[in-house]
Amino acid sequence: MDPRPIGVFDSGLGGLTAVRRLRQIMPSEHIIYFGDTSRVPYGNRSSDTILKYARQDLRFLRSFDLKAALIACGTVSSNCLTQLQRENDIPVIGVVEPTVRRAADLTRNKRVGLIATRASVNSGAYQRQMTKLDPQVEMFSQSCPLFVPLVEEGRFRPGDVVIETVAREYLKPLQDAGVDTLVLGCTHYPLLEDVIGEIMGEHVELIDAGCESAYAVRRHLKEHDALAPEGQTGSADFYASDRVADFERLAAIFLHEDISHTAWQIDIETY
Amino acid sequence: MDPRPIGVFDSGLGGLTAVRRLRQIMPSEHIIYFGDTSRVPYGNRSSDTILKYARQDLRFLRSFDLKAALIACGTVSSNCLTQLQRENDIPVIGVVEPTVRRAADLTRNKRVGLIATRASVNSGAYQRQMTKLDPQVEMFSQSCPLFVPLVEEGRFRPGDVVIETVAREYLKPLQDAGVDTLVLGCTHYPLLEDVIGEIMGEHVELIDAGCESAYAVRRHLKEHDALAPEGQTGSADFYASDRVADFERLAAIFLHEDISHTAWQIDIETY
Repeated sequence: MDPRPIGVFDSGLGGLTAVRRLRQIMPSEHIIYFGDTSRVPYGNRSSDTILKYARQDLRFLRSFDLKAALIACGTVSSNCLTQLQRENDIPVIGVVEPTVRRAADLTRNKRVGLIATRASVNSGAYQRQMTKLDPQVEMFSQSCPLFVPLVEEGRFRPGDVVIETVAREYLKPLQDAGVDTLVLGCTHYPLLEDVIGEIMGEHVELIDAGCESAYAVRRHLKEHDALAPEGQTGSADFYASDRVADFERLAAIFLHEDISHTAWQIDIETY
Repeated sequence: MDPRPIGVFDSGLGGLTAVRRLRQIMPSEHIIYFGDTSRVPYGNRSSDTILKYARQDLRFLRSFDLKAALIACGTVSSNCLTQLQRENDIPVIGVVEPTVRRAADLTRNKRVGLIATRASVNSGAYQRQMTKLDPQVEMFSQSCPLFVPLVEEGRFRPGDVVIETVAREYLKPLQDAGVDTLVLGCTHYPLLEDVIGEIMGEHVELIDAGCESAYAVRRHLKEHDALAPEGQTGSADFYASDRVADFERLAAIFLHEDISHTAWQIDIETY
């Protein structure tokens, strides 16, 4: 057993979908979350910049004595997970492996779609992971650069012509490819589940990166006998690199809980 | 006369609309442009973060021996121009004063609209400037947080249902207010001139921040006898904080000229 906290970071708020699931399935754990809101979004940046930012994010989280870190960001996970794992002496878990594993398990026709940021798609990481797990599965990838700004503007509800038009456009090639499983490779996308589900139809399984990565963390801790003592009362602390009032306001949407006056601002460039 | 270069910066690419105009009206000037592409966009960030980034941007530009600096960014201009002017011993020109002056000159019914980023609108800077110039003019402000991501995704052309829906929504209150003049308070927005013009109608004058601020720079240099010697062959150098290949590709759209292989990447966090 290990009472120490789990660190979680994302470029912004999307990673809170993972935190929400972590708290549901492991209520005894301490969680420390960092959202790099002063530099969000990462999804259109170069891989060098993404690595640089991710290193700073992880260095900040490691100023706490963590037992594990979850990179709840598709862009970072797909661009530099191996590097971050090499540089850190604690387990560092990303979203690519857990989501691809789940997709490989669920697909019946061996045709899997991926939607993610441009940097995630360009990295080829999901494709490589799938080839490793099941070389017979064909993957079809589509970058969706407008999904993050639209979600952050609250435009994620069915009936909004803007999100529906953009979503239909992005998803068309995946529908045409006849995928029966779709990886939501960005932790912002679970908020679009209704819109995406309606377009793709009931027969297509949606895989939620935040959710799958939370289960992956639990599996890892269990295997290494590092879960929190059962009597422990879990907690969550929130840090952001820009003004926390804005962070707290939007965080409620992702977390389904109010975190007013509980977040702290830090200067990420000093890490 | 002063042969030294003019520095220009923006959070990303929008400021290139000002560079384009500067080069048209002052072909003898040397221009050094910096686009903070690793931290774009600024428009939803807090004023503290905007000031911090703007200081670094200007410190980088001032590693060259400048005769003047143009803040070709509505968000920075409206949030911290005075501070930056106080901290620098060269003229620092922003986009607020020149655009508001032009709007005050052009309006006939004394009803002026402003569209800009959330941070620009929240700053109240345009309103204050207008009250100073002509207290009889009423200003109506609307933040348009999706315009920058949509423009950067190339969705600025009439006929695109996404940009047209978003634009109609944002512009409705300004139409209802009966403005006859509309300040495009962000240097990304000139690319939306056709879409916005079609919605607002021919009788509404659109004021282009990049363009007006370029004229303001020329006025200032002329008044202080600091224009470049006439025989001088002007030039433009481009710097960005993320990968220059991406910057160069998009820059062509804003500049209407090809700048392949001429931009340099710098690490803005070290300034």
